Amino acid sequence: MKSFVGTNTEASGTEDRYPSRVGDKPVIIERRDPTVYSEWSEDSPLTREQSAFYETNGYLFLESFFTDEEIAEWREELRRLQEHYRTRDAKEVIREPGGGEVRSIFAVHDRNDVFRQAARHPRLLNIVRYLLGGDVYVHQSRINYKPGFAGKEFYWHSDFETWHVEDGMPAMRALSCSIALEDNYPFNGPLMVIPGSHRKFVSCVGRTPENHFRSSLRKQEYGVPDPGSLTALVRESGIETPIGRKGSIVLFDCNIMHGSNSNITPYPRSNVFIVYNSVANKLQAPYSGQAPRPTYIAAR
Amino acid sequence: MKSFVGTNTEASGTEDRYPSRVGDKPVIIERRDPTVYSEWSEDSPLTREQSAFYETNGYLFLESFFTDEEIAEWREELRRLQEHYRTRDAKEVIREPGGGEVRSIFAVHDRNDVFRQAARHPRLLNIVRYLLGGDVYVHQSRINYKPGFAGKEFYWHSDFETWHVEDGMPAMRALSCSIALEDNYPFNGPLMVIPGSHRKFVSCVGRTPENHFRSSLRKQEYGVPDPGSLTALVRESGIETPIGRKGSIVLFDCNIMHGSNSNITPYPRSNVFIVYNSVANKLQAPYSGQAPRPTYIAAR
Repeated sequence: MKSFVGTNTEASGTEDRYPSRVGDKPVIIERRDPTVYSEWSEDSPLTREQSAFYETNGYLFLESFFTDEEIAEWREELRRLQEHYRTRDAKEVIREPGGGEVRSIFAVHDRNDVFRQAARHPRLLNIVRYLLGGDVYVHQSRINYKPGFAGKEFYWHSDFETWHVEDGMPAMRALSCSIALEDNYPFNGPLMVIPGSHRKFVSCVGRTPENHFRSSLRKQEYGVPDPGSLTALVRESGIETPIGRKGSIVLFDCNIMHGSNSNITPYPRSNVFIVYNSVANKLQAPYSGQAPRPTYIAAR
Repeated sequence: MKSFVGTNTEASGTEDRYPSRVGDKPVIIERRDPTVYSEWSEDSPLTREQSAFYETNGYLFLESFFTDEEIAEWREELRRLQEHYRTRDAKEVIREPGGGEVRSIFAVHDRNDVFRQAARHPRLLNIVRYLLGGDVYVHQSRINYKPGFAGKEFYWHSDFETWHVEDGMPAMRALSCSIALEDNYPFNGPLMVIPGSHRKFVSCVGRTPENHFRSSLRKQEYGVPDPGSLTALVRESGIETPIGRKGSIVLFDCNIMHGSNSNITPYPRSNVFIVYNSVANKLQAPYSGQAPRPTYIAAR
């Protein structure tokens, strides 16, 4: 497995190749980093087609990646945590807007034995190391509950936009793995991605107030892409909803534009969400010039 | 075409066979009316299979029912009305919660030449008369804009529950026709139905305040089915999303449980929505004992 030495500039320190929340007008900037950081070979943990699909589309769906036993264990832990936090507060716990239901629990890879093991799953890590070209660490992890009846939407966003501006992630050399803990349907608010959008960076308008992160995890207000840019991206390549049975995973590039609709069905859509970042892409000071977010949201 | 004389009790006046918003606990009541009010014959405007499907499932999807020319005309009129009401207010115009975007315009069959013709479309009326067993009139009509990016969800509901309690509709002898003016996708907030749920009436808890209808058309707060009943209905028969190209229609029984998720995609999901009621099922005084809603919402 060989990294493309020299093609990324993650060590550039303060140079901001992806400025956002600095202007009055949205701008679309071409990606200046690779998407797949290794050269494919027979020994790679993905097929040539899978690797090419990820490079072109910015995501890869793998049906039944985890076994029913693994999922059963994680679901049990998920329910235990939900019960635990029903009546207790913790800074890692985010609740649904306008309600007390648990929406997300952060840093589960760090504070929970079960999900620490999940994040280190060897078969998964192999693929992640291949895509990111070498050693990785967990930048962020969380459980998203997306409960039935009341799961609200996540509006369109590029994770990288936030991680860059608010956390100081220099380059696009990170990816997310979303593990479905429930069967996903077209109608229970599945992840929607705009294929190929990872190759464009939508620079958003507006500035970020200090310490807005707690409310932003409930409802986004900053770093929101404008309707014109979204329409342009969708016109180019449409929308995909990679869905499948529980145990399926979606790997997606840190800069792919994604979101999800609300979920009024009785089917919850819980998932575990683990973000891996290359060790060569460690966080700098946030490009917003503001204080960094807490480490349970962005590991340093 | 023969009606089932005597099987429905729509002339019963004040007898309330479907009480709702009267108790503290939700109750599921078996349907006491037919679903298809005519006997099928070779001359019927639906095939035997279509008629049986509607009877069993409470809805029927007909792909490309209207021509591209018809849809083009209606879309143009829809845009003209949207433009017209962008800066003007009217009681028939309902806006999105938390925003000024037009959500719905009511009574378009009555006040607009283009949609008056649409509501009287002979091929459509033939089917409606067959299903409802005789002459019909338009109980309610509206355009739903469901705009891109910001279309909010419509939570689960039975239309009949509202029409019965708030408008005094005695029997389940009405149906809706939803005409897709845009291509529908799984991800732009399509109509979701619970097949077969038209055979159960979910009696809702709570009471209705006076004159709540304006806010209820933006966001429901009364006549909302409880999670337990919804879960039971979905467990029995799942959820269907009848979707297709623009020009497709969905006919659905007044008592089928339906709703839709939000729409954050750039694709709007505009539709025309026409409710037909049997002339033998004319409105009485509302079963809530309150004042009737205005005639642009419920024709008398």
